Amino acid sequence: MSHSTYHTEDTICAPATPAGTGAIAVIRVSGKNTWNIMEKIYKPYGEIQFGDIESHKVVLGQILENDKPLDEVLVTKFVNPHSYTGEDVVEISCHGSWYIQQEILRLLVDSGCRMASPGEFTLRAFLNGKMDLSQAEAVADLIASNSATSHTIAFRQMRGHFSRRIQQLRAQLLDFASLIELELDFSEEDVEFANREKLLELLTIIKKELRQLIKSFALGNVLKNGIPVAIIGKPNVGKSTLLNCIFNEEKAIVSEIPGTTRDSIEDVLVVEGVSFRFIDTAGLRDSSDTIENIGIERTYEKIRQAAIILYVFDASTTTMEEINETISEFRDTLEDKEKRLILIANKIDLMEEMPHHFPDLVEMETIFVSAKRNENINFILESLLKSVSVGVEEANQSIVASSRHYQALKDTLEALQQVRYGIDDGLSGDLLSSDLRAALHSLGTITGEITNDELLGNIFGRFCIGK
Amino acid sequence: MSHSTYHTEDTICAPATPAGTGAIAVIRVSGKNTWNIMEKIYKPYGEIQFGDIESHKVVLGQILENDKPLDEVLVTKFVNPHSYTGEDVVEISCHGSWYIQQEILRLLVDSGCRMASPGEFTLRAFLNGKMDLSQAEAVADLIASNSATSHTIAFRQMRGHFSRRIQQLRAQLLDFASLIELELDFSEEDVEFANREKLLELLTIIKKELRQLIKSFALGNVLKNGIPVAIIGKPNVGKSTLLNCIFNEEKAIVSEIPGTTRDSIEDVLVVEGVSFRFIDTAGLRDSSDTIENIGIERTYEKIRQAAIILYVFDASTTTMEEINETISEFRDTLEDKEKRLILIANKIDLMEEMPHHFPDLVEMETIFVSAKRNENINFILESLLKSVSVGVEEANQSIVASSRHYQALKDTLEALQQVRYGIDDGLSGDLLSSDLRAALHSLGTITGEITNDELLGNIFGRFCIGK
Repeated sequence: MSHSTYHTEDTICAPATPAGTGAIAVIRVSGKNTWNIMEKIYKPYGEIQFGDIESHKVVLGQILENDKPLDEVLVTKFVNPHSYTGEDVVEISCHGSWYIQQEILRLLVDSGCRMASPGEFTLRAFLNGKMDLSQAEAVADLIASNSATSHTIAFRQMRGHFSRRIQQLRAQLLDFASLIELELDFSEEDVEFANREKLLELLTIIKKELRQLIKSFALGNVLKNGIPVAIIGKPNVGKSTLLNCIFNEEKAIVSEIPGTTRDSIEDVLVVEGVSFRFIDTAGLRDSSDTIENIGIERTYEKIRQAAIILYVFDASTTTMEEINETISEFRDTLEDKEKRLILIANKIDLMEEMPHHFPDLVEMETIFVSAKRNENINFILESLLKSVSVGVEEANQSIVASSRHYQALKDTLEALQQVRYGIDDGLSGDLLSSDLRAALHSLGTITGEITNDELLGNIFGRFCIGK
Repeated sequence: MSHSTYHTEDTICAPATPAGTGAIAVIRVSGKNTWNIMEKIYKPYGEIQFGDIESHKVVLGQILENDKPLDEVLVTKFVNPHSYTGEDVVEISCHGSWYIQQEILRLLVDSGCRMASPGEFTLRAFLNGKMDLSQAEAVADLIASNSATSHTIAFRQMRGHFSRRIQQLRAQLLDFASLIELELDFSEEDVEFANREKLLELLTIIKKELRQLIKSFALGNVLKNGIPVAIIGKPNVGKSTLLNCIFNEEKAIVSEIPGTTRDSIEDVLVVEGVSFRFIDTAGLRDSSDTIENIGIERTYEKIRQAAIILYVFDASTTTMEEINETISEFRDTLEDKEKRLILIANKIDLMEEMPHHFPDLVEMETIFVSAKRNENINFILESLLKSVSVGVEEANQSIVASSRHYQALKDTLEALQQVRYGIDDGLSGDLLSSDLRAALHSLGTITGEITNDELLGNIFGRFCIGK
């Protein structure tokens, strides 16, 4: 483990509250010189001295520059290790003017602080063992969360549910490694067979757990980032109007001219705590318009990315042949069991008589709507919710929502697979242990037992300033 | 005093930090039921109960809705009267996601809180005697302050410098009133002459103080809102280019075509802590273009409002006659001693030889610049700073920066003037006391001894939510 490029010797400061003007703003200071710096610029009211203030106590006073008061503030000391970063921390709650915030930050820097980089407070919390890497990542996810499900996943991860499971897995792997080492110790005595079954049993258990976690990413990823829903269909069947109905506002340009929607429009709708990322697409047809053709190509790309496809057609004109043709066109895509196709028969307001293929459509669970008259749109939302097969609430097990964790888990599984092959091929313990180390390494990157500057830079660079 | 429309029986909540996503956000709760509501939704970590937490102590715990954790938060209790509002207050420092803030506020409202109106926390602070009205107004000014001077004025006012002076004045006025009453008591004994001199002496002192305060508004107002600086001159002399130089960026549209700047452009520049509100104007000339003529009319209006006029001319072509002509055009305006004219000879880069009227220009303290080459612009800024005759730092006396206070002080002076006339006319004490009451009333509205719902609505409606 090396953190050579991260300096934790200096004292950092940053605004912790959103940019802008509000009733109050909070400025955070953390590091070895926090007390010295605050003694220079802060004077509590009354007889008390800064040094005498106890930890976690809020005290009113003034920020002063050369005896000139800059603001009246509430200051809270958090004495190490009982702080967010594990260092000596002060939170200054000042009046929320932009000017005052800037002036206090300037004064802090003039007094020996350095402006913190994004995520540097949380980085220090990690480096000081206040949380592991997966929990630190969850802090950023929590702040970015915009729905009940993404919030729940991030909150659980921050509280350490996922970390504990990874730690259990790693403990089992270490048990496995010690068994291998045991085998190495006794290799000359040829006791290999005695441990073989035990080894394979453990390996099976660990791999099963890994596979469960890896599988959970499909759900975790869509719950975190929103379930991608592609709206497809021939031109002029009312896809954009439907999207507008769903969002109850004008997100797409709607017109009578086929091919109006050239670019893909994405927007997130939260239905009962679940995020759906809607993708409006260009109509599916051959076109001589180059820009439109680019749009159609993008449509196919979006379909590949989507978890749910809403296939919209004109109920008043579309034949069963056309519908079957379109479905077969996407056969390859739809054979992926993770995807779901929902048929939407639009323009029921224009239907003059019941189409003879109505029973077929019903059997295919087609949803009949009129986007124009905003009718039956709620059925679409209900159907979407049903598509979320396992709710995050019901999932007792940990859900992997980070692609970094997903990759690390896949790497771990891959390495363990090699260990398994090695055992099957009768490789000696010392040859097995190389793959075993690789597995322990991959798993260790998740919680941060194994890390490096680049990894930390990637993770904490995503944070906002002041966290 | 009546505050019938302001309900202080219920418990209010609001975000106290700026809107948006940040590392943390602070939500404030204030009112009689704060403890009950928090006991329902907050559980501190460890063995401690919410009720046992002491005032001003920061405690980590969870916000819970039906045992489901919503966020991990820091909670600080402020037990009445030792809080901002004087009521029982809680500050919840939560993760700064928009989602979490909304969810906690929703939970607070579901648990019995009401969302606070703008300024309602400060209104309660006023109603509970934590600060007077002038101090409450200063809180809003402080949050809105964007320069060292506007900040200093607001900060002093918040700390009560101005209030104390008004209270002293009011105490003197009450002394005066008691002398009048004394006179009433002895009216039948004709002792009027005994008190007359004392009365006039006191009146003179009070009026002098009032005049000083009223006079300070000229400075206080410009320091608070920025000193208005009008840039005037014939078309195409480089006014917009000069403004761009001063602001170091493209604020105005610059072109070679005379009459490009039709509308007035305003922007604030802070030079060494003093705000200057720059007003670019349409060129001064007769024009057949209607829109441009409207612009020119606005120019004259802006000149009337300005404290400093920068008269820009083309050094390479403008004659002394033209300059004198323009100055005489603004003679009426410039006779106002509060205004200052600064001559700017622009385009020195185009000057081929020294103009014969150079000594005259030097005598008039003309600043020679090249806006195009960004030369000597700093001399303009220095000259502007010199124009601020009395710096706020040097002013030992209170500075009136609120037009409401200015009006109240003028009303007080006017009423006392009537008292003076009454004494001169030999009016009896009971006739004088009506004007005296009017003076006491006007002065009382400043600090809030006298107030009403409309006044409070006007003042606190200007606040941001959460303050």
